[in-house]
Amino acid sequence: MKSEDVFKKVVAHCKEYGYVFQSSEIYDGLGAVYDYGQYGVELKNNIKKYWWDAMVLLHDNVVGLDSAIFMHPKVWEASGHLDAFSDPLIDNKDSKKRYRADVLIEEYLQKIEGKINKEIDKAKKRFGDAFNEEEFRSTNQRVLANQAKIDETHSRFVKALEDNNLTDLRQLIIDCDIACPVSGSRNWTEVRQFNLMFSTEMGSTAEGANTIYLRPETAQGIFVNYLNVQKTGRMKLPFGIAQIGKAFRNEIVARQFIFRMREFEQMEMQFFVQPGEEIKWFEYWKEARMKWHKALGFNDEDYRYHDHDKLAHYANAATDVEYQFPFGFKEVEGIHSRTDFDLSQHQKFSGKKIQYFDPERNESYVPYVVETSIGVDRMFLQVLSASYEEEVINEEKNDTRVVLKLPAPLAPVKLAVLPLVKKDGLPEKAKEIIKELRYSFNCQYDEKDSIGKRYRRQDAIGTPFCVTVDHDTMEDNTVTIRYRDTMEQERVKIQDLEKIIGKQVNLRTLLEKL
Amino acid sequence: MKSEDVFKKVVAHCKEYGYVFQSSEIYDGLGAVYDYGQYGVELKNNIKKYWWDAMVLLHDNVVGLDSAIFMHPKVWEASGHLDAFSDPLIDNKDSKKRYRADVLIEEYLQKIEGKINKEIDKAKKRFGDAFNEEEFRSTNQRVLANQAKIDETHSRFVKALEDNNLTDLRQLIIDCDIACPVSGSRNWTEVRQFNLMFSTEMGSTAEGANTIYLRPETAQGIFVNYLNVQKTGRMKLPFGIAQIGKAFRNEIVARQFIFRMREFEQMEMQFFVQPGEEIKWFEYWKEARMKWHKALGFNDEDYRYHDHDKLAHYANAATDVEYQFPFGFKEVEGIHSRTDFDLSQHQKFSGKKIQYFDPERNESYVPYVVETSIGVDRMFLQVLSASYEEEVINEEKNDTRVVLKLPAPLAPVKLAVLPLVKKDGLPEKAKEIIKELRYSFNCQYDEKDSIGKRYRRQDAIGTPFCVTVDHDTMEDNTVTIRYRDTMEQERVKIQDLEKIIGKQVNLRTLLEKL
Repeated sequence: MKSEDVFKKVVAHCKEYGYVFQSSEIYDGLGAVYDYGQYGVELKNNIKKYWWDAMVLLHDNVVGLDSAIFMHPKVWEASGHLDAFSDPLIDNKDSKKRYRADVLIEEYLQKIEGKINKEIDKAKKRFGDAFNEEEFRSTNQRVLANQAKIDETHSRFVKALEDNNLTDLRQLIIDCDIACPVSGSRNWTEVRQFNLMFSTEMGSTAEGANTIYLRPETAQGIFVNYLNVQKTGRMKLPFGIAQIGKAFRNEIVARQFIFRMREFEQMEMQFFVQPGEEIKWFEYWKEARMKWHKALGFNDEDYRYHDHDKLAHYANAATDVEYQFPFGFKEVEGIHSRTDFDLSQHQKFSGKKIQYFDPERNESYVPYVVETSIGVDRMFLQVLSASYEEEVINEEKNDTRVVLKLPAPLAPVKLAVLPLVKKDGLPEKAKEIIKELRYSFNCQYDEKDSIGKRYRRQDAIGTPFCVTVDHDTMEDNTVTIRYRDTMEQERVKIQDLEKIIGKQVNLRTLLEKL
Repeated sequence: MKSEDVFKKVVAHCKEYGYVFQSSEIYDGLGAVYDYGQYGVELKNNIKKYWWDAMVLLHDNVVGLDSAIFMHPKVWEASGHLDAFSDPLIDNKDSKKRYRADVLIEEYLQKIEGKINKEIDKAKKRFGDAFNEEEFRSTNQRVLANQAKIDETHSRFVKALEDNNLTDLRQLIIDCDIACPVSGSRNWTEVRQFNLMFSTEMGSTAEGANTIYLRPETAQGIFVNYLNVQKTGRMKLPFGIAQIGKAFRNEIVARQFIFRMREFEQMEMQFFVQPGEEIKWFEYWKEARMKWHKALGFNDEDYRYHDHDKLAHYANAATDVEYQFPFGFKEVEGIHSRTDFDLSQHQKFSGKKIQYFDPERNESYVPYVVETSIGVDRMFLQVLSASYEEEVINEEKNDTRVVLKLPAPLAPVKLAVLPLVKKDGLPEKAKEIIKELRYSFNCQYDEKDSIGKRYRRQDAIGTPFCVTVDHDTMEDNTVTIRYRDTMEQERVKIQDLEKIIGKQVNLRTLLEKL
């Protein structure tokens, strides 16, 4: 199956099986905002718990936090978001459409590169084995001209971005003769910076309300609480603060389903260390986080690191954990060595001393920070993409199934209990089993349709275990347990179910691999 | 201890022991917004899990949902929030202070009533046993005049509110000669409606962005997803959808710590029923929810129902579960029979058919709804208020302790493991115990200060079990377990710890009472 088809199918499956719905769908939706359905919320909660337990339960020097979405506006001055967290936008006066200026130029460069490649492909066909690409590139006039155009545009582009020079950015669009894809016109406005933070007004005094922002990242909630947690928790370096929560970005081009949304959820951990120790800890967390991902048991080859060549001004090391989505390798998590930038900024802007007294070194200093930052929604999409399979059961009979091979500890429903028929006390017996097991895990009762159809339904939901109650059950208290991935069936005692299933669905099976 | 003192102490305790911090404290705080610290987040998560499991795990006809904070603006037109979710505000032109007009009048009425009571108290003292209140009320001129003033003002007040007549509301303030508490002046502006929803701008097209709102309640996210969940989950009436999430209200007068905040968290469940069945289910949930509260084991007498006399226009039954906070009986949870109001409104505004085909009745209709709605933060404050105790251990030695008698399944830390001394391999042994038990529950290691001091620290955090590792432990693998509430100690085998503690801290101990 082509990968774009896989992605389309995953998206459709999410809707059909209660994983993800478009927000406000009955009102024709709200752009780049999604709701998690009855199974989606369970999967999401299980992912969050897996992260939380790996961070907080397994590290005795990592504690949690739940800071509010609303923060004092000064926080975003200190962090740099108010000044620099923005995209350069330009409007076409005829179509009234708005674009990211940098994206227009990038697309232009790609177009020219495409022209070069076309020229080369043509020549290859014409000259066959005699074709020498190097020679062709250095002699063909059209290729030479296009390459010169790319080189010049690219270096002007990089400079304009570095200087944050919006006038030059616009001039580049004019000079490259870039037209609006909708109107075809070159009638452009100025380029303006557009901040990605959502703002709102808080309070209502006669003197006026305060403009505050919806946090664009959860990390700052950790930084401004560093002193509170360190002191009341009597924490010693190195220690970490972990947090899960919503963040908001007014993305101009939001896309790829829940991969990039305007409202999303982050799981971030800031690890405070002695200055000079940060690279050691960066390496520690880089490895630990990859282990966490791989413990889920998907293909190892679908994960890779992407070390950053160009670092943000506050970072001295950075890497991404990338996963091969149906639309290519993309970032799922970032691990960053952020130096003492954030705490120092808050020290400067708040006028409060944000330091750690180190009894070993007998001095006070601003701690260094190593951050791990992962998007819950991306992780959700990663797990679903990796779990979704279409299997041919019997080619002759054209019998196929769609199955979500979710890691059992993450599956929304752990066990479906199915009476073979709707009579002879079988439904009551099935409900009795659920009544006992529901304290330990999420169970579902289903009596509708044939047993085969019910198995398929549970496969599509990703339920790792189905238990069928039949007439023998009434005699000997045994049931048939059917395994999602192998479709194998086994006869077991009712009293053994909790142990058999519990062993596999408990988060501990994942945590012990870390 | 006086109750306002208890409340002050609970607030201070929250700060000192990492339960609740003021938001953005290093920037001198943000009004009516709070952050949950390292212990607060664990208690909050445990409360949420207790609710979720009671709703979703224990009811096979209740499923979860996690809808976004952002919703299509039409949702709030349909729900009535855009028109009617507002407070009448008035400004004093001299002090520039803003007030809720209705609160000014209510306070005025209370003042007059205070005058009457004073008059009566005085007379009681003067006349002693001979005092007849009824006679006094009907003959004392000042009392008569004040009572007349109350009656007249009150009836005008009720009418103005019912008619939503802001001019009359203002006239009442003028006629009652109400002065600004700050400037003392009677120089008032007009009364204006101020909507409590926070608004923001989404997107950035050249044609302009859209005004959207931060949801003031989570319930609407459930209503607009009713069809999605019912269809993809193949749900049959009656069934419920449960959701936990943030909501936002721009309260003019936010107060009492985390009791009323501008950013808060709700746990709401909407139960969809056949028309005509709603009162039966209202009664069911009324009882079920009280049971949930009382299962925590606090004083039964601190809970009561408060049935609503005056119902909202969409409701045909409503009650609150109230708890006796240090500042009096206050609502913790509401149970409301909301009829088919919300779904019908969304049907009307979206133009989509939002109905249920009932195979028993062989007809389609808009389901009726019974709602249970509880504030996570209020619940948090309730649990802390009920758990906070100052105990005298030994009066002569002036030995006291502060202990949080949290229900063990809700406690942030379940077990503290304490080596008696920092040598002889005791710390290593203690850490070994944690290494095994940490998969099952949140453990804490502490080696600093005397064992007595460490016990007190754990009492203040609310840790139900402390285990001390001493020299005998190294010989026979036994430890001393110390119980928070009784302070009794017992010698047990290390291998039995998981069972002894697990039995008491598992949420199942609460859920089985329901």
